[in-house]
Amino acid sequence: MGMQHGAMALQLRSLVTAQGELQLSLVDVPVPQPGDHEVLVRMEAAPINPSDLGMLLGPADLGTLRAGGTPDRPVVTARIPDAAMKSVAARVGVPMPVGIEGAGVVVAAGVSGAAQSLIGKRVAAPGGSAYSQYRCVRADELLVLPDGASAVDGASCFVNPLTALAMTETMRREGHKALVHTAAASNLGQMLQRICTQDGIGLVNVVRRAEQVQLLRDIGAAHVCDSSSPTFSEDLLEALVATGATIAFDATGGGTLAGQILSAMEAAAGRSTPQQFSRYGSTVFKQLYFYGGLDPRPVTFQRNFGMAWGMGGFLLFPKLEQFGEETTRRLKQRVAAELKSTFSSHYAQQVSLAEMLDPEVIAVYARRATGAKYLVLPGKGLE
Amino acid sequence: MGMQHGAMALQLRSLVTAQGELQLSLVDVPVPQPGDHEVLVRMEAAPINPSDLGMLLGPADLGTLRAGGTPDRPVVTARIPDAAMKSVAARVGVPMPVGIEGAGVVVAAGVSGAAQSLIGKRVAAPGGSAYSQYRCVRADELLVLPDGASAVDGASCFVNPLTALAMTETMRREGHKALVHTAAASNLGQMLQRICTQDGIGLVNVVRRAEQVQLLRDIGAAHVCDSSSPTFSEDLLEALVATGATIAFDATGGGTLAGQILSAMEAAAGRSTPQQFSRYGSTVFKQLYFYGGLDPRPVTFQRNFGMAWGMGGFLLFPKLEQFGEETTRRLKQRVAAELKSTFSSHYAQQVSLAEMLDPEVIAVYARRATGAKYLVLPGKGLE
Repeated sequence: MGMQHGAMALQLRSLVTAQGELQLSLVDVPVPQPGDHEVLVRMEAAPINPSDLGMLLGPADLGTLRAGGTPDRPVVTARIPDAAMKSVAARVGVPMPVGIEGAGVVVAAGVSGAAQSLIGKRVAAPGGSAYSQYRCVRADELLVLPDGASAVDGASCFVNPLTALAMTETMRREGHKALVHTAAASNLGQMLQRICTQDGIGLVNVVRRAEQVQLLRDIGAAHVCDSSSPTFSEDLLEALVATGATIAFDATGGGTLAGQILSAMEAAAGRSTPQQFSRYGSTVFKQLYFYGGLDPRPVTFQRNFGMAWGMGGFLLFPKLEQFGEETTRRLKQRVAAELKSTFSSHYAQQVSLAEMLDPEVIAVYARRATGAKYLVLPGKGLE
Repeated sequence: MGMQHGAMALQLRSLVTAQGELQLSLVDVPVPQPGDHEVLVRMEAAPINPSDLGMLLGPADLGTLRAGGTPDRPVVTARIPDAAMKSVAARVGVPMPVGIEGAGVVVAAGVSGAAQSLIGKRVAAPGGSAYSQYRCVRADELLVLPDGASAVDGASCFVNPLTALAMTETMRREGHKALVHTAAASNLGQMLQRICTQDGIGLVNVVRRAEQVQLLRDIGAAHVCDSSSPTFSEDLLEALVATGATIAFDATGGGTLAGQILSAMEAAAGRSTPQQFSRYGSTVFKQLYFYGGLDPRPVTFQRNFGMAWGMGGFLLFPKLEQFGEETTRRLKQRVAAELKSTFSSHYAQQVSLAEMLDPEVIAVYARRATGAKYLVLPGKGLE
């Protein structure tokens, strides 16, 4: 099927040793053989998402990064603080592939008709080993990219686009009419703003710096609140009153922001419908989901937002399972149809697998800064 | 109907003034006239629940309590710290009746058959003005006490019994098989233990002091974890593994306990079904509800329990509404049937309405200490 039997290809591995060391390496693995319902994808592009960094770097102290190995088989190591070893106990000694999504070309397929029909197609795939030259994926998990879309266009078409769509879907299903999003200047945040503009949904964007306000205004955001501004509390309250947002999706996952949002929602509820005083607060149900962990501090809040509230974790793939196949298919179709508009992503840099293991490069993408997203090209420089 | 028209009776009122003062007083109010579907209850006994204290005392600084008025029309005042005035803004200048439940005798009734049929019956009633000599209540909201039950037996038959039953009902409806309860040596906690023993439900009791362990063991508790013990973490984990509890009801509402429980549930999930390492944690859904606020500190937690979790507020009456009429009726029937066994309450002291306003008495019941629950007898000493 175009692949020589016994051929080898590169795969990135992340290993935590019992001695408290993180090792990132490129290893030669046999090109896998697709099962009956699988296809073999030659990976062309895979983003480094914030959610990849946890698996890739774990709790390693990046101040201790050291390069080793050879130029095309680099190995980079770093110390893991003793206190953090408990959190990675389950992966000690197990070299793990990394990369939760990416795009490439189907170069071989299993015997099923569905798999065979994909040969030669450019596809995007979810899953855990995107930083590989080749990988096998179940045919029904793929998204076939539209004509004219490159692997770079399609590399990020699972995590961010589907997460953004899952947010508005969750908002509707749980009976809310508008939403709040934090770290809103991210690629995902920009997609969410475009979705909300298109669908007529009220969106309150919370950002952390003044320059991010303009970025979102430029793509049509009506409500952008800068948490570094002295008027943040008032701005947030006004935006909540204006939109009626009672559900929030928080990417920071630590500190006091979550409680502050619920508290402001409660104040907005009191403002919109003046109620009799109740020490149990309003009857307006307020929900906050954490979907990221940009802020490593503990979550802290004073329960000053009544009793009608919920907090929880928000994770894409279990959420899609809960929505069911039909909804998931509908969301994927929208991603494919609007790949170059609503769901376009921007990358600061394109790197090869080997460059991805350069300590100086790691130091940049590990910062998770807005506008500093990296794209890995697994075929680059290693042919 | 036995009540002279224009008769007056005493009612306790709690007032927050714009000047930052809390005033508790006994006021003479006209005995209310029951509407068509209401009955007039001569109140005989009403407990001081932790949830009454918020309305009664608000955020007043109890170090500043001062007695005033006359022996049978006492007025007691205290300062409210400036910083706390915002939290009570909605009740400034509005004298509020207090008391969320109590029992007494029906002495008059509206014209409806349902109301008329209750005349002379001893009943328990929910609602917000139990610290009164007389009050009107909707006939369909009452619980008729069984023969031989006194008002003292029935005074606490709404909040604690129905809250305890609503916990096991919620546990079942949300798909859990065992539960965790904190501040578990309370009257409510003892009821919950008796319910769980009777219904064969696994219950993990969390208490704060060694002597509370014995109290619960004496009524048959299999799992009691003392948070002041150096082995608390291990004890909690063992109890969670043994019971499979994945839902918790927390009365403390502040500090780090909530997060500690979710974290231990996650560890127990990993122990029961060893899973492949996932940086998103286990797929076992863990829920924690706050139903009280014994601990005034902010809630603080490290999100180290995966993504499959929820937190929220738990409030009895909205919960019963959600369960629906049939379930609520079933739960009430159980309370009446087991009033003197499962749902018996213990009081440290019985006080009159006037004694309830004595600063020394307030200082005791405001502590919310286990075993120091007070019962108010609105008819006592003021006939």
